[in-house]
Amino acid sequence: MDSIKKENQIEGVIIQRLQVISDDRGSVLHMLRNDSSLFENFGEIYFSEINPKIIKAWKLHKNLTQNITVLMGRVRLVLYDNRPSSKTAGEIAEYGIGRDNNHCLVQIPPMLWYGFQSLDNQKALIANCTDQPHNPLESESIPIDSDKIPFQWNSKK
Amino acid sequence: MDSIKKENQIEGVIIQRLQVISDDRGSVLHMLRNDSSLFENFGEIYFSEINPKIIKAWKLHKNLTQNITVLMGRVRLVLYDNRPSSKTAGEIAEYGIGRDNNHCLVQIPPMLWYGFQSLDNQKALIANCTDQPHNPLESESIPIDSDKIPFQWNSKK
Repeated sequence: MDSIKKENQIEGVIIQRLQVISDDRGSVLHMLRNDSSLFENFGEIYFSEINPKIIKAWKLHKNLTQNITVLMGRVRLVLYDNRPSSKTAGEIAEYGIGRDNNHCLVQIPPMLWYGFQSLDNQKALIANCTDQPHNPLESESIPIDSDKIPFQWNSKK
Repeated sequence: MDSIKKENQIEGVIIQRLQVISDDRGSVLHMLRNDSSLFENFGEIYFSEINPKIIKAWKLHKNLTQNITVLMGRVRLVLYDNRPSSKTAGEIAEYGIGRDNNHCLVQIPPMLWYGFQSLDNQKALIANCTDQPHNPLESESIPIDSDKIPFQWNSKK
């Protein structure tokens, strides 16, 4: 399962290529198994749509690890590492995630700011398999244009 | 989480209404949490597409419990109960599952024959959260038109 896996750009973020089993009747898309080296605990599986050209940002989980994959459309994921003790503290990373030729899982550890934008004028659908169930007390949000994060979404569409 | 839940038609099959949190930016769709009464163990989360008008049938899991929801399109799920000791032995049940007004989880216990058909000339996408990871030795398949199951897919499209 874990043949192609790399730690990427931001300390603790892992990208794993996932298998798509093509079939004329409709493909099967892998995401996460309990025998994967990326799996630690099951908290919740839920889905988030992003309407065309919409940005959902910025959010941070204090304790929760996310495992995300894109089922529909194409998504720009932006991460900002504000962890003082991280090797990549202060860094921004961008990832283009979509199904075509790039069906992958992105594991996002706690304490990273993250945001999503749908690309290609298409609605996107993200699956998120977390290690804890949703708890509103555990996350923080700041506005898209917050000056706490050195990134401008709109100038980089 | 479990406010609307019923056992439905076939012994051991449970239908749970799921929440859709509507948002102009794109909705959030619930599926399964580890504190749900329907959750027992996490085996795997994967996705299965069904191309327009296609039927994927018949399959049976000997040990595995499936939790399915439909993320895209509309699906006809047909179950056949061939368990000798079941209260509903010999029975067929049909379920129409889709997101619009009916976002739900269907929990399918082991030893039931099942099949899916996409409806509305649209590609369907099913999420399947199972209590064991996929193991080809654990399932059985028979042809769509097998006379072991008293159901004709094509005459009922």
